[in-house]
Amino acid sequence: MSNGISLKELAAELNLAPSTVSRALNDSYEISEATKKKVVSMAEKLNYQPNPFARSLRENKSKTIAVIIPERINNFFAQVMDGIEEVTHEHGFHLLVYSTHEDVEKEKKIVSLLQNRRADAIVMSVSSQTSDVSHLTKLYERELPIIFFDRICSEIPTTKFITNDYESAFQGTKHLIQQGCKKIAFLMLSKELSITKERHRGYLDALNEAGLAPEPTFSMHCCLNEEENIQSITQLLKSQNRPDGILSSVEKLAIATYHAVRKTDLRIPDDLKIITFSNMSSAGLLSPSLSTITQPALTIGQECAKLLIKKLTKPKHTDLIDQTIVIPSQITIRESTLVR
Amino acid sequence: MSNGISLKELAAELNLAPSTVSRALNDSYEISEATKKKVVSMAEKLNYQPNPFARSLRENKSKTIAVIIPERINNFFAQVMDGIEEVTHEHGFHLLVYSTHEDVEKEKKIVSLLQNRRADAIVMSVSSQTSDVSHLTKLYERELPIIFFDRICSEIPTTKFITNDYESAFQGTKHLIQQGCKKIAFLMLSKELSITKERHRGYLDALNEAGLAPEPTFSMHCCLNEEENIQSITQLLKSQNRPDGILSSVEKLAIATYHAVRKTDLRIPDDLKIITFSNMSSAGLLSPSLSTITQPALTIGQECAKLLIKKLTKPKHTDLIDQTIVIPSQITIRESTLVR
Repeated sequence: MSNGISLKELAAELNLAPSTVSRALNDSYEISEATKKKVVSMAEKLNYQPNPFARSLRENKSKTIAVIIPERINNFFAQVMDGIEEVTHEHGFHLLVYSTHEDVEKEKKIVSLLQNRRADAIVMSVSSQTSDVSHLTKLYERELPIIFFDRICSEIPTTKFITNDYESAFQGTKHLIQQGCKKIAFLMLSKELSITKERHRGYLDALNEAGLAPEPTFSMHCCLNEEENIQSITQLLKSQNRPDGILSSVEKLAIATYHAVRKTDLRIPDDLKIITFSNMSSAGLLSPSLSTITQPALTIGQECAKLLIKKLTKPKHTDLIDQTIVIPSQITIRESTLVR
Repeated sequence: MSNGISLKELAAELNLAPSTVSRALNDSYEISEATKKKVVSMAEKLNYQPNPFARSLRENKSKTIAVIIPERINNFFAQVMDGIEEVTHEHGFHLLVYSTHEDVEKEKKIVSLLQNRRADAIVMSVSSQTSDVSHLTKLYERELPIIFFDRICSEIPTTKFITNDYESAFQGTKHLIQQGCKKIAFLMLSKELSITKERHRGYLDALNEAGLAPEPTFSMHCCLNEEENIQSITQLLKSQNRPDGILSSVEKLAIATYHAVRKTDLRIPDDLKIITFSNMSSAGLLSPSLSTITQPALTIGQECAKLLIKKLTKPKHTDLIDQTIVIPSQITIRESTLVR
């Protein structure tokens, strides 16, 4: 297979020494402007491209950033990716993208593959199964720059970007209470996740502030299977002591709730009010339209990338200090939580 | 920055020659099983990982496949990506992912960056702006294996994967006619795209078969700006000679239509019926629920990846022959096209 022409072939074509051509292409002061012009124009004509792996070996840099996300079919992660790419593309970096599909074993395998520095740095949101973080600690100890966002790993002393999970959940729950809800459930994927813990804490504190006692069965763990979630939420809604409000910490659990409600005689918002963390663009078109807590996904992606690029291009002047940067979410009230 | 231990350091630790260690790790028949075991266990203990760029240079392979898509916040492309990753991950390949954001200039830049063989192969769906394909021809001429899906480039003699665009659009239009529609509009992003042309042809043929004359203004080009699309669709719906049915060739234009309808006195499906190409999981939850033509996104991704992996691992026995493989879509009728 053709690899395009080599530096040697380009030099032969120009009747110059390869070292001269190399210096001309690197804009060296030792080479005259006329020669540089000649070299560059011939390189363009013959479509000469330096070998990226030779450069990677030489500079010990791959110009690649790895992004690890728990799932791809999710507007939040898609928007974060867009934010990351916007900044990295501008700086000539390439993105290796991996989805763990919420599987910690897959996450470990991906992380292990990245230890050999295929990528210069990593941006990551951990899977909902991740509790033991030794695979991440190992990565960190290899001095590979790593940044977490959304589902962060608090044990690793690096910079993390999140939204105001506690505050948003507190406000969302308070809104449900103001709309008359007395028995509010909290839906979550996994309590292992830092953000779930924060959102749950916000939910509990809002109940507490209003003098409502939390029902343990109302803090509901769901799974990754949509059908099973619809079933267990249906069961909750059909139980004698059913909730009249739901704060969903994940978009897909709100969707499952909409499906579940259709299997009951209940109606949203009359019998059940619901608000969810979500970046779905069609939330306003659902029946009824869905109240949302929207995370600043694009901004989170951009900020992660800006900091990493700074770290990679000016390593001596940039530290990924152990801090958590909070970018607030936006609450949008729609029909699903309004009193009719 | 630490790069992990080198082959030389590993060999020193084992008191063996680097060449012996290298052969042991490559499972050479020249090395005893006992030595191999010792080497592998020490390599694991010290976390030795071969340098991927040295291997890339040596083997002229990067173990990387580039995927170029027009947008990320789109369920169809997210599902295709999942299908591709499922297969490539199993074979130890990494994915470089690029979004053109429907911008042909960005597409050209990405393609030019890939000419230096950073990736071993490319899977691609072109932007809606792409009409001149010389940048893609150039890539193909460099003998970089390339496969197109969905928005294919018919000028390039390689394998392409699509759905039955003509047939699905024909059936979708026929369904609208059977539901009583007489004035059916076709919404599209760009007529440059091969798939749009096919879908438009299916639409026209179904009208023709039913003896309905196509209105030129009903074949409507939309743009990438959602607000502008909502405005122009609203205008169409408010015009005296308005359509009573819509076949949307793109999911986002159906969403724009839902928003536009809310700016009029019309109701779906009473005054306007609509069916769209879409892979949105919440189509059934919209108000009213949305009839869809769902493309086999996951399968398309898997098939693209399977063929490319075969080409990369058994190049002499695999040709990316000039053919178009068609995987049929599935039509799901919901409230938006039903007679009440």
